[in-house]
Amino acid sequence: MMKATARAHTNIALVKYWGKKDPTLMLPQTDSLSLTLDRFYTTTSVEFDPTSAADQIQIDQAPAAPNVAQRVSQFLDLVRPQGCFARVASVNNVPMAAGLASSASAFAALAAAASWAQGLHPSRTELSRLARRGSGSATRSIFGGLVEWHAGHDDQSSFAEPIQEHVDFGLEMLAILLDTRQKKIGSRRGMQHVVATSPYYPTWREVVAHDMAAMKLAIAAQDIDQIGHLAQTNALRMHALNLAADPGFTYFNAATLKAMETIDHLRETGVSCYYTMDAGPNVKVIYDRRDRETILTALTPQFGADHLVVAKPGPGVEKLTDERDSLI
Amino acid sequence: MMKATARAHTNIALVKYWGKKDPTLMLPQTDSLSLTLDRFYTTTSVEFDPTSAADQIQIDQAPAAPNVAQRVSQFLDLVRPQGCFARVASVNNVPMAAGLASSASAFAALAAAASWAQGLHPSRTELSRLARRGSGSATRSIFGGLVEWHAGHDDQSSFAEPIQEHVDFGLEMLAILLDTRQKKIGSRRGMQHVVATSPYYPTWREVVAHDMAAMKLAIAAQDIDQIGHLAQTNALRMHALNLAADPGFTYFNAATLKAMETIDHLRETGVSCYYTMDAGPNVKVIYDRRDRETILTALTPQFGADHLVVAKPGPGVEKLTDERDSLI
Repeated sequence: MMKATARAHTNIALVKYWGKKDPTLMLPQTDSLSLTLDRFYTTTSVEFDPTSAADQIQIDQAPAAPNVAQRVSQFLDLVRPQGCFARVASVNNVPMAAGLASSASAFAALAAAASWAQGLHPSRTELSRLARRGSGSATRSIFGGLVEWHAGHDDQSSFAEPIQEHVDFGLEMLAILLDTRQKKIGSRRGMQHVVATSPYYPTWREVVAHDMAAMKLAIAAQDIDQIGHLAQTNALRMHALNLAADPGFTYFNAATLKAMETIDHLRETGVSCYYTMDAGPNVKVIYDRRDRETILTALTPQFGADHLVVAKPGPGVEKLTDERDSLI
Repeated sequence: MMKATARAHTNIALVKYWGKKDPTLMLPQTDSLSLTLDRFYTTTSVEFDPTSAADQIQIDQAPAAPNVAQRVSQFLDLVRPQGCFARVASVNNVPMAAGLASSASAFAALAAAASWAQGLHPSRTELSRLARRGSGSATRSIFGGLVEWHAGHDDQSSFAEPIQEHVDFGLEMLAILLDTRQKKIGSRRGMQHVVATSPYYPTWREVVAHDMAAMKLAIAAQDIDQIGHLAQTNALRMHALNLAADPGFTYFNAATLKAMETIDHLRETGVSCYYTMDAGPNVKVIYDRRDRETILTALTPQFGADHLVVAKPGPGVEKLTDERDSLI
């Protein structure tokens, strides 16, 4: 039985991860904190086949692009003996490469499925370390709910752990899907450029240290307004790093600015709602579920109901044991 | 003869002024460096009338708004004996309050006209100090061409001086007029908010110190490509401060992003051109005059010929002695 299927959900950082200190071990420059979402996830089956001569990697029912296939194969090398090839099939319920962090759910699911297919029984902490090697934000997608990633200083010390796996105080996120085409500057390249050239980067480390502490207090107090305020400020300070790089760049487009303005305006009228953006133009709204309908009503005329996706706190990585769930 | 008319031209900073350390004396946090432009200017006549009981202030042929009139009157108090009222008439050849710094040319012209109408003979350094009290950037508009404002530490030491009054190596600016409506957040309020809340502000001071030195070297070398590169990077680092404030804000709108993208793209195709933005959505392009037609050809389809204004280096403040130039 060298086959297993796993499902992992994507996560959106409330305190952003933006910059590596070790690109091989994927150690981040700072801690970070996220919310795992129920609506966006990846399901991945891995089957090791001793008789096979090469990896076969399918993503969304098509052979993976060569650069993606290589990244997956290199990741599999971390869990398999040499010369043991695999069939991998993966399906994303995530708009890819548009700042909705499909690589987070993808590598979390791959880490789990590959480990289980090898007959290993890693702890979730061990899975979190392993997922990190595929994609930084995948570290956090092993867990559900509100999750903290400890930057650490080596492979052993850099892993995520849950702050609150079952978030039951009304925290929700709404994704405004503005552009699901490929992003111009991938997050790996963007953050590397920022660490190398943005003069504000040293201060960003201090910003994150402050925001991590403040965000954990806000979570303990179940203070959604404060969580949102901290998340928005943190996101804008991350995007300010990009503008300040040399050359400067931005992930924002016209629709991003429009969404930001709309949310800011809605908040000024008394609705507690805030935004966050990642390495793409999409905007995610942070709010209390009791305000969901008000916010949807305000956003629908501008962005269209099809582009608004409500997401609730989601679970950590799961083993799918029903053979019907297998993609292979 | 208690009447005089002056004309001053606006300027666009290549190394930005963004933050005061003394709001009464209008001492800036940092040095700055600008290019005075021929196309945008203010003409102002001042007549002191011992028989008058109040100031009468006209701007663009209409009575000034109360807050503007008060600001002008308080400025006049710096040059006149108590109880001496004035008629002021001012005409702007500048799209107002859209990041094209009409207050720079306005207070430079007012400082000169009011001083001359009082029968004073201030040096240009003295005029520069005086203009500063009306509007920070007016400090620089006393001079033509490339101008440096020394931040200083008191009234005496904070003034501008020319680096190169007659710029003859081909440096030009093209203003893309995207929005001439009133800006959302005035520059005074914007910069004050940034100094108070942006964690990147201390680093901005270091950025400016570096950029001042580098820009003066680039000017000495008549290296327009380097001047443009430094100006664009400096501008984006200023705008990054705004995004990083609490709450964060931006002067960019959809058209600003489009213009930035167009200029970046044009540069990638080999045309040396860069952008800068101030406290508004308008974009100014920095380039060598030999590339003017190429740049106009590239921008016209997107922004329309009516919205593109070519500006050359302009002169410092001038006395208009012909009675026909008087606005009173």
